[in-house]
Amino acid sequence: MDYDIRDIGLAEKGRLRAEWAEREMPVLRTIKERFAKEKPLEGIKLAGCLHITAETANLAHTLAAAGADLTLCASNPLSTQDDIAAHLVESGIPIFAIKDEDEKTYFDHMSATVDTGPQITMDDGADVVAMLHKDKTHLLKDVIGGMEETTTGVIRLKALHGEGKLAYPIVAVNDSQTKHMFDNRYGTGQSSLDGIIRATNLLITGKTVVTIGYGWCGKGFAMRAKGMGAHTIVCEVDPVKALEAVMDGHQVMSMDEACKLGDIFLTVTGGMKAVDGKHFENMKDGAVVANSGHFNIEINVKALEEMSEAKREVRDFVDEYTLEDGRKVFLLAQGRLINLGAAEGHPPSVMDMSFANQALAGEYIMKNHSKLDPGVYTLPEAVDTDIASIKLGAMGMSYDVLTKEQDVYLNSWEVGT
Amino acid sequence: MDYDIRDIGLAEKGRLRAEWAEREMPVLRTIKERFAKEKPLEGIKLAGCLHITAETANLAHTLAAAGADLTLCASNPLSTQDDIAAHLVESGIPIFAIKDEDEKTYFDHMSATVDTGPQITMDDGADVVAMLHKDKTHLLKDVIGGMEETTTGVIRLKALHGEGKLAYPIVAVNDSQTKHMFDNRYGTGQSSLDGIIRATNLLITGKTVVTIGYGWCGKGFAMRAKGMGAHTIVCEVDPVKALEAVMDGHQVMSMDEACKLGDIFLTVTGGMKAVDGKHFENMKDGAVVANSGHFNIEINVKALEEMSEAKREVRDFVDEYTLEDGRKVFLLAQGRLINLGAAEGHPPSVMDMSFANQALAGEYIMKNHSKLDPGVYTLPEAVDTDIASIKLGAMGMSYDVLTKEQDVYLNSWEVGT
Amino acid sequence: MDYDIRDIGLAEKGRLRAEWAEREMPVLRTIKERFAKEKPLEGIKLAGCLHITAETANLAHTLAAAGADLTLCASNPLSTQDDIAAHLVESGIPIFAIKDEDEKTYFDHMSATVDTGPQITMDDGADVVAMLHKDKTHLLKDVIGGMEETTTGVIRLKALHGEGKLAYPIVAVNDSQTKHMFDNRYGTGQSSLDGIIRATNLLITGKTVVTIGYGWCGKGFAMRAKGMGAHTIVCEVDPVKALEAVMDGHQVMSMDEACKLGDIFLTVTGGMKAVDGKHFENMKDGAVVANSGHFNIEINVKALEEMSEAKREVRDFVDEYTLEDGRKVFLLAQGRLINLGAAEGHPPSVMDMSFANQALAGEYIMKNHSKLDPGVYTLPEAVDTDIASIKLGAMGMSYDVLTKEQDVYLNSWEVGT
Amino acid sequence: MDYDIRDIGLAEKGRLRAEWAEREMPVLRTIKERFAKEKPLEGIKLAGCLHITAETANLAHTLAAAGADLTLCASNPLSTQDDIAAHLVESGIPIFAIKDEDEKTYFDHMSATVDTGPQITMDDGADVVAMLHKDKTHLLKDVIGGMEETTTGVIRLKALHGEGKLAYPIVAVNDSQTKHMFDNRYGTGQSSLDGIIRATNLLITGKTVVTIGYGWCGKGFAMRAKGMGAHTIVCEVDPVKALEAVMDGHQVMSMDEACKLGDIFLTVTGGMKAVDGKHFENMKDGAVVANSGHFNIEINVKALEEMSEAKREVRDFVDEYTLEDGRKVFLLAQGRLINLGAAEGHPPSVMDMSFANQALAGEYIMKNHSKLDPGVYTLPEAVDTDIASIKLGAMGMSYDVLTKEQDVYLNSWEVGT
Repeated sequence: MDYDIRDIGLAEKGRLRAEWAEREMPVLRTIKERFAKEKPLEGIKLAGCLHITAETANLAHTLAAAGADLTLCASNPLSTQDDIAAHLVESGIPIFAIKDEDEKTYFDHMSATVDTGPQITMDDGADVVAMLHKDKTHLLKDVIGGMEETTTGVIRLKALHGEGKLAYPIVAVNDSQTKHMFDNRYGTGQSSLDGIIRATNLLITGKTVVTIGYGWCGKGFAMRAKGMGAHTIVCEVDPVKALEAVMDGHQVMSMDEACKLGDIFLTVTGGMKAVDGKHFENMKDGAVVANSGHFNIEINVKALEEMSEAKREVRDFVDEYTLEDGRKVFLLAQGRLINLGAAEGHPPSVMDMSFANQALAGEYIMKNHSKLDPGVYTLPEAVDTDIASIKLGAMGMSYDVLTKEQDVYLNSWEVGT
Repeated sequence: MDYDIRDIGLAEKGRLRAEWAEREMPVLRTIKERFAKEKPLEGIKLAGCLHITAETANLAHTLAAAGADLTLCASNPLSTQDDIAAHLVESGIPIFAIKDEDEKTYFDHMSATVDTGPQITMDDGADVVAMLHKDKTHLLKDVIGGMEETTTGVIRLKALHGEGKLAYPIVAVNDSQTKHMFDNRYGTGQSSLDGIIRATNLLITGKTVVTIGYGWCGKGFAMRAKGMGAHTIVCEVDPVKALEAVMDGHQVMSMDEACKLGDIFLTVTGGMKAVDGKHFENMKDGAVVANSGHFNIEINVKALEEMSEAKREVRDFVDEYTLEDGRKVFLLAQGRLINLGAAEGHPPSVMDMSFANQALAGEYIMKNHSKLDPGVYTLPEAVDTDIASIKLGAMGMSYDVLTKEQDVYLNSWEVGT
Repeated sequence: MDYDIRDIGLAEKGRLRAEWAEREMPVLRTIKERFAKEKPLEGIKLAGCLHITAETANLAHTLAAAGADLTLCASNPLSTQDDIAAHLVESGIPIFAIKDEDEKTYFDHMSATVDTGPQITMDDGADVVAMLHKDKTHLLKDVIGGMEETTTGVIRLKALHGEGKLAYPIVAVNDSQTKHMFDNRYGTGQSSLDGIIRATNLLITGKTVVTIGYGWCGKGFAMRAKGMGAHTIVCEVDPVKALEAVMDGHQVMSMDEACKLGDIFLTVTGGMKAVDGKHFENMKDGAVVANSGHFNIEINVKALEEMSEAKREVRDFVDEYTLEDGRKVFLLAQGRLINLGAAEGHPPSVMDMSFANQALAGEYIMKNHSKLDPGVYTLPEAVDTDIASIKLGAMGMSYDVLTKEQDVYLNSWEVGT
Repeated sequence: MDYDIRDIGLAEKGRLRAEWAEREMPVLRTIKERFAKEKPLEGIKLAGCLHITAETANLAHTLAAAGADLTLCASNPLSTQDDIAAHLVESGIPIFAIKDEDEKTYFDHMSATVDTGPQITMDDGADVVAMLHKDKTHLLKDVIGGMEETTTGVIRLKALHGEGKLAYPIVAVNDSQTKHMFDNRYGTGQSSLDGIIRATNLLITGKTVVTIGYGWCGKGFAMRAKGMGAHTIVCEVDPVKALEAVMDGHQVMSMDEACKLGDIFLTVTGGMKAVDGKHFENMKDGAVVANSGHFNIEINVKALEEMSEAKREVRDFVDEYTLEDGRKVFLLAQGRLINLGAAEGHPPSVMDMSFANQALAGEYIMKNHSKLDPGVYTLPEAVDTDIASIKLGAMGMSYDVLTKEQDVYLNSWEVGT
């Protein structure tokens, strides 16, 4: 078995951490049990590019239990948990990922993974898909379908499909309600704050926290920052979302204004240069800047480098940039995902649902690929209902069921005031 | 001019209140100015069934400025503000609505309104549509289109259309983001709490508040009840929404359990019997029950009447029911909309957007009716963007605009990590 | 029996409302039952100056049950509930209070009450004490003690005592924890917001709400305004409290800055001119200003009158002032207590504890007056514990009791790490 | 120079972290500058027992700048940051502290520190005072005064003084408003949650979090747990505080009930056995238990050990105990302070004020010790005002100043309604 990880000796620690995460992943556990019996992915070659974390380990075990022959690489050079990588290799799953690997190694790892010649791809940002469609088109013929985890990835896939180039059907796992409404919001909310606090040990209350982007991730982060006592400002490009931010109790303004007021900035736009050179120019001395969107280009790090007279690391994950006039700006985790860089990523309880969708998407592709044209698909709503229902039960909570009379009423137009 | 209202002498008070509301309705004001010049509804007969409030007065003035010849009746027997009715009549707009009118008068008023033979209908719960399609089908031939305000109404329209019976195109105003995301959530949230407090003067903090239904209305109410210090419980039939409630910090359980714990109950399901006889049987002594969904059937008032040994009004809008074992249950506003019964309905600031959608929907129908088959339509997304943009500006807030480079990036699949 | 009220015909409505309030006042109910047996105030003449509300009615019944011969007048010209006044008179308790009475009548009423020659005084702002010490010193000889309800009143009493002039012992009911920590915070918080919403029907979320004064009342109001979605600013003169406001998640600045930003202002300083002429000059068009401190001088209404070109009432409790440059400022309830003017005052659940302290303070004075020099006294801590304990029990909540071992540990210095 | 630390090689990392913390400590910085000029502690021998953290390093530098000759040991075996210890030694300040030292080493370190023969003692839990009064009474004669940091310590000192045994005056730094209202509340609130999340990576929202003890620490923690979306339950022995918890929006019940419902438990009582054997017996499978009070006896770890069939460490700071029936309970940081064990302790921004009080208390003792009898003292209120004022200024915030007229009014009894 070919693989490339930091240290196989970390396997036992990784195993315990994966087990700990599994306690919080009842939905995925339920699916694993069924998959172990039904083997829906028997013999299927699967290449995945995901953050290599304790939660991903549980997804990997679930896919392996389903019979898949899978290989994984990291979707981000900073997010790999080396003990988990070791544990997976020890379990017989090849991993190509080392925390803090350089750019070249990162791409070599992805290349090695894609070169296994997968029938199904699994992405977190559409990187495998992009590599297949750009550099390894000869492998496309074996692929029957894929899964994509993130908002950013789905946008890229749609762009690719819009140009008529997407070669196979892909399930946008992100579009499941039980994914984006939970993982993106409550997961990003807590874990980004966690990452910022671990990196800086700053007191959040009394600080002005600027959230750039008010999609599901931004909503979650701004809500939790407020819950920790911050004065919250939101910047947005969509006026409807901007107005929602106002009504949720945040101040709303353009980044040109907000850049002067913030103590802590977080980008979650899915785009680029949300924090740009002109913003750094106007920041307060001591401003802290982090990213929890997908790529490290949300912050224009290059502009910051060029504007700065000096740079040094003052704490783990905290780089101090000294500007010409002496002001200091602190960049966290080099502008890469703060929640995976400085903390452990989303808690298992939300990844449970996201990865339940991943696992079921794999099964869905197996069952339906022959009927599906290339394109971006969403799992049927019943999958959401099932996942949420198992989750609630595992949390000891119950919900109501419509009586026949109530159901009829809801679908009638004649009954009135 | 034919009309039926309480007292024309209230007109001046109504005028002042409508003016006050208008201060908070900058979007509608902007539309009114344009309509006054362009006259998009010149000579069009319009029949509307809406809550007759200060905000509706401003919509009526906007439609009148557009040239429409409109007549209005109440969409709820309890929600009419008599001073506003007087003010509208004095402005030359016929109104058929008296606060606290009995069931018969209520239907007579609707009948009188429908009998004007409208070309466009405007509904808050699809009552005019239902009357036209059941009892007054001879008038259908003149109708070119309609607008519907509420979630409940849209469900009814889709049921009607599902049976192949809907005779003309209707714009589901409720489906605009600037409507349901704001009016239903922030409007219902504040105004329902307001109605409960005005009716009871109860201290909310320390109380267990049960929200039944976690759609937009339920989300808003539970959020604000929590904001006032309540311990919040949510009941839902959709497990995805139930799980969202959990993550928003509420306790979630079936109504069979919640009915034993609640101090205050609010129904916002859009359905029927969300609080039923079996729930009343298990309530604590002193429980308070109210409705902010659409119809008064969300609470099974008939069951409560039958279970009770005595009934008396102990405060305005508070009926005390004494059960056989001596426990008392308090029903607010007879189970009708608590925010319109005991308070003034949604604040003008949210109705501004809802009614901007109404006004623009009227214009949309005029322009497009010849191209539209019978069915339920949503306004184009650009309308949402425009409304939100005007609103933000009027609140003194700014938002960002994507640079060309950012825009290109967001629509590209090739750029990577 | 001598009295002066609006209309005795309102008595039945008042009785029902008092009964409704009593449901939420379990502590006072428990005390009333004991007082009815023990008659601790038998034959004592008591003169009270309180807001005449449904909650006060229950205090009055409790004192009457104790055997007191009491007379009440209003502590504020706007706060009297005429139906409650009628109900008390019908119960045999003389009342001198009419809602909206003019200044002269207000003082005549207080004079009539003081002229009954009380042995115990009961104040809400020290007005009876002030009248006795200024104008009616001949009556001082019969007085054995008094009770004071408010922060402002206690400050005045201490000033009077500081000058060596206070003639008898007074219990500062406000200093009980079960009074100021609850009534001032949670009571003022909810009821002031309630008053503002009833007066204006404004949507709170999206508004900038400025709280002036961050004592217990200010803390409560700012917390609830935030809970309703407002962007909250706090102004304070004590830097420790100002810092606490920051950490509680509010923005803090001087009123000179805040006056330019606020949409809604509330004064709760206990002092004067917290909103002054120079602030009105800088307010935004449409600013709303209200007071929930003690006296109407917290807002410099006179300055506003002088600066204005026009004034008119646009809604109940809303006066529109037009400044020279055309900007409009809206003053609520003439600058008098907004929660009692436009709403019903504190909910009964908090007044339960405040008035339990009042009732027990009366008993305390009877038992201890011969031992007490003139001065300001606080009830023993055990009274707080008892009141809180009864309250929790009535709400169905339980608390822990220290074991002997835990208690010993807490009082030891030798046990260590 | 005698000292005992982990590794002097960590000094540079410690220096950078101390510098980082200093950015957030403007008040202490201001004091250090003055002390460096005035040398108020010139030549004074000072023995301190504090958590050896980045914030403490800044206090140590301030005292050294004042001329003190100080030696420090750890106040908790788990809380030492080894890089900071190294940095301090390199700066010339002797440290006796190693993270995770065993009980014996811990006491040896304290002994070595006390044996320096201090004139001033500085405590975090009164351990140095206890050692001096129990085992090293011969050293008492040189001591002129001391400072104590915590609630628990102050209780112990008062017990010691109550027995007439306290030998010198001690300033209860904890009693300063700028200490307990901020450090205990906002510091403990954020840092305890931080510790729990770092140890477990659990999603807080959707969990039932039980706070045991509703003093300042408990208030802060429950508030922040709620802010992160938890369903919060509070257990208390003081009914007034219990009621305050209710009004702050928490559920309140006895620990006998709460132990069955909680997912996460935190003790902040300052006492012992707040979580006892009988509670472990009733916990849910998977319950997580942590302590953020002072000593590790708040949780009866011994009882848990005896009840368990197996124990293993499943993650750093997470011990899994398997009970006889198979249920698992997870104890964090061995029941020691979770915020210092698994995270970095209070953020510098709050320690700034706490340690400003410490530094000023040292100066106060120097100036006043000859006038002070043995006893427990509080710093003058003006110190609080100064500290808060500097802090606000450094945060860029302003506050109001009373005009002469306002001041006179506030101290007058004659001005009225």
